[in-house]
Amino acid sequence: MQSNLAVTDKTQVKRGPKRADYSIERIHQIIDASLLCHVSQCVEGQPFITPTCHWRQGDYLYWHGHSHARNLSVGQPVAVNICQFDGLVMARSAFHHSINYRSVTLFGIPELVTDKQEQTEALRWFVDKISPERWAQLRPITETELKATGIVRLKIQEASCKVRAAPPVDDADDYEWPVWAGVIPLEKRWGVMEQDPVQSVDYPEPKLSDAF
Amino acid sequence: MQSNLAVTDKTQVKRGPKRADYSIERIHQIIDASLLCHVSQCVEGQPFITPTCHWRQGDYLYWHGHSHARNLSVGQPVAVNICQFDGLVMARSAFHHSINYRSVTLFGIPELVTDKQEQTEALRWFVDKISPERWAQLRPITETELKATGIVRLKIQEASCKVRAAPPVDDADDYEWPVWAGVIPLEKRWGVMEQDPVQSVDYPEPKLSDAF
Repeated sequence: MQSNLAVTDKTQVKRGPKRADYSIERIHQIIDASLLCHVSQCVEGQPFITPTCHWRQGDYLYWHGHSHARNLSVGQPVAVNICQFDGLVMARSAFHHSINYRSVTLFGIPELVTDKQEQTEALRWFVDKISPERWAQLRPITETELKATGIVRLKIQEASCKVRAAPPVDDADDYEWPVWAGVIPLEKRWGVMEQDPVQSVDYPEPKLSDAF
Repeated sequence: MQSNLAVTDKTQVKRGPKRADYSIERIHQIIDASLLCHVSQCVEGQPFITPTCHWRQGDYLYWHGHSHARNLSVGQPVAVNICQFDGLVMARSAFHHSINYRSVTLFGIPELVTDKQEQTEALRWFVDKISPERWAQLRPITETELKATGIVRLKIQEASCKVRAAPPVDDADDYEWPVWAGVIPLEKRWGVMEQDPVQSVDYPEPKLSDAF
């Protein structure tokens, strides 16, 4: 059974509502498939925006920053977007050109993670999202490092996703227009690993995930 | 000679200032190398964020939307970010893990493009950014389509960029820690073109650019 989040004034998709989806599973999938999010905040009416890496544990979206960084926005409303650009949609008219994408927008007020054990666990989760089992191989984290790292989490409860994954949709009269139409997928993959030139031992290469 | 934008309270990079750059050329390069931006706005203290496609003409960043779309934000301050995620930076400690990236943040108040000829020219610029020479091959744009499309532009004058393109930087004591360290580049490329299945003629495939 699909579980949906409640639709609110903020998450009601107004443009292209037929592409909107409030399925928790779908929202989690898109969050997990991405490494980069954008955090938007207001400071006295002035918008700010910060790209940062995120991860998810259960019903919470996490991100981190310097313990005094603006993007942590503790106690202040944020809007967060995660968008995967999947391909170009080439139509017969300029108007119907589009892109295929998977996009999630979340709203809420982030809370600071203050418990040291929770902080450590969250960072382990983050590192192992990027490279499974890596945390255990690293030089252990120190108290000073934990103090310098601010971690916030946002409950995934006011959110929507919008997905386009389809060929072009043209006006009925345009289908015979003599120009190539279709989709050009954007492919992402990890390239050849570049070991730190100062490292002379051939350590095993890190495992990778499919989150880009 | 390199031309720099003036640094303001909003564009002063506070975290990692040594990665900051205010070079107009560098900012233009990053804008041009990307198709997707994120527009952040405030509505009565509530932040909103919209991913959308952008293009550049001279000193202006452009984007479009439905003529009544929120992301156009005419006359209201916005913050816009364009971020290219270029690779994972794998250090010996969790703390020094990072990513390589190119990021531009712009501030300002967008203005609506209202002149029909300017609108048409802007959309041609947009289409031809994605696929050089495509505009001329398309079914010509109509008055109705122009009316339904809102185009805004933001002068590129209050902006900064931040770039990381380097191996990991670890604590001096950690360099001998026995774990693979280095950079894992993220590669992006256009995949095999998927022609619209309803199209039975083999039209020449569209030209592509290197903006992803």
